Amino acid sequence: MRNVTSDNITDTFLGYFGDDTDPRLREIMVSLATHLHAFARETNLTHEEWQKGLDILRQAGSITTSERDEFVLLSDVMGLSSLVDMINSPEKGTSSSVLGPFHISNPPAMHMGADLKGDYEGELILVSGRVLDTDGNPIAGATLDIWQTAPNGLYSSQDPDQDMYSFHALFTTGDDGCYSFTSVKPVSYTVPTDGPVGEILNATGRHPWRPSHLHYIIKAEGFRSLVTEVFPDDDPYLDEDTVFGVRDDLVMKYESAPASSFPETGFDLCGKVGEDYLVVNFDLVLSRA
Amino acid sequence: MRNVTSDNITDTFLGYFGDDTDPRLREIMVSLATHLHAFARETNLTHEEWQKGLDILRQAGSITTSERDEFVLLSDVMGLSSLVDMINSPEKGTSSSVLGPFHISNPPAMHMGADLKGDYEGELILVSGRVLDTDGNPIAGATLDIWQTAPNGLYSSQDPDQDMYSFHALFTTGDDGCYSFTSVKPVSYTVPTDGPVGEILNATGRHPWRPSHLHYIIKAEGFRSLVTEVFPDDDPYLDEDTVFGVRDDLVMKYESAPASSFPETGFDLCGKVGEDYLVVNFDLVLSRA
Repeated sequence: MRNVTSDNITDTFLGYFGDDTDPRLREIMVSLATHLHAFARETNLTHEEWQKGLDILRQAGSITTSERDEFVLLSDVMGLSSLVDMINSPEKGTSSSVLGPFHISNPPAMHMGADLKGDYEGELILVSGRVLDTDGNPIAGATLDIWQTAPNGLYSSQDPDQDMYSFHALFTTGDDGCYSFTSVKPVSYTVPTDGPVGEILNATGRHPWRPSHLHYIIKAEGFRSLVTEVFPDDDPYLDEDTVFGVRDDLVMKYESAPASSFPETGFDLCGKVGEDYLVVNFDLVLSRA
Repeated sequence: MRNVTSDNITDTFLGYFGDDTDPRLREIMVSLATHLHAFARETNLTHEEWQKGLDILRQAGSITTSERDEFVLLSDVMGLSSLVDMINSPEKGTSSSVLGPFHISNPPAMHMGADLKGDYEGELILVSGRVLDTDGNPIAGATLDIWQTAPNGLYSSQDPDQDMYSFHALFTTGDDGCYSFTSVKPVSYTVPTDGPVGEILNATGRHPWRPSHLHYIIKAEGFRSLVTEVFPDDDPYLDEDTVFGVRDDLVMKYESAPASSFPETGFDLCGKVGEDYLVVNFDLVLSRA
């Protein structure tokens, strides 16, 4: 096209594809260019604003490492990560929710009833539930990869004072599909604000808080893997998660229970707790692959 | 919003803005999020495709330096840079066109009729024209910052064999608004293909070529600055510039002229050329600021 104008540039772009382009790649690139161009036209984007956008990407590039990914965070706070989760959620089963940037590989295998908190202080919680198929049958041999922050609001990879696998565990279900462990109640925390994402949140009057949660990845043969989170129903940030991760079916009540009621068997702490504790039950329902 | 869904996530995003958010920033972020979300919904974007998009941004970040900006190049090949140019072009006057990533600051001031090619071989060209206002009156004291590739298709900043300011010059008009210089005819060249942009072009069956051109930045007090290019009308890539820079009024004929007709005065080469040459006349019409 010799005379490209703001009216025909999108069509010109569409005309550049080679005949052998993968149809799915073409579909994605056509939609991306169409929306990118419509965004620029709608806003009458100036050169200075365009440069500012490029600056944000350049800054994200310069702050990103193998352990801290500002591009993922940018996608998170724009709502894109959660939207991709929701678009790809199966119709039945437990909702998925954001993976987040703090998952680590090869968490330590633990037996049911293990204690994740070690010497950390905090509100004792007893977490249990079942891994089920959509007909309510237990799934045996399912793995639950579970992680959370320490009571200081930091994941182990963010906190030099924690061991690498602190508050990370891998459980495998038996025939009853059950899982259970003890830990401390997770706390609300802020996403990192020392990069361009922090600048965007600040400029748009948004806070960087996430409601407290436990992370789960559940895998079982013959079923779709599920990445999700569970939130306590009294968290002040449930209605304003800065990364849009909350779903109704992921919000659970942490019920108070007296110390005297703590189970006498089945847990590493077995009736040895000297304080009241909180019980949360969270079943995970998986769709077939 | 406690129950974010793919249908309400865009509204949830819009509800997060602080009351004090700058209205223009809000307008841009609303449009950006709306289009980004619509893109994901329309394409039913998968997690793998979302990750591939993030990979492209991470790779662009890791290859970008102060002298090579892959994010600008990505914007260029997506048509966004040219669209921003067009959106911001004044209604009257010469069209603007992409700045590109190879402009360098403080080019050497030269007198009218100077020769830019030095010892480089190529087709001799004599370039001249006037800087005018939209009523056709000459503009005195306008600066023309002009640059091009060497005959090998490389800008001086890409080519260790060239001096820093090779094929870069700054001219200032007198009362007649005229400018003139000699050089060699620019050649078609490819944008850098060793990064993720090269991967995108390859996967979508696009070539990386730009039609040959001379770059101009023209500034004059009381007028809008103009960033533009001039293209010879016989370039094979005029209809398929990979960065969408061609406009009808920027395409000029390079007229053949016999060596005997070369001017006897006014040029450093003054009638000393032993070969036929090409003449191109390119007037630059500036809008008032």
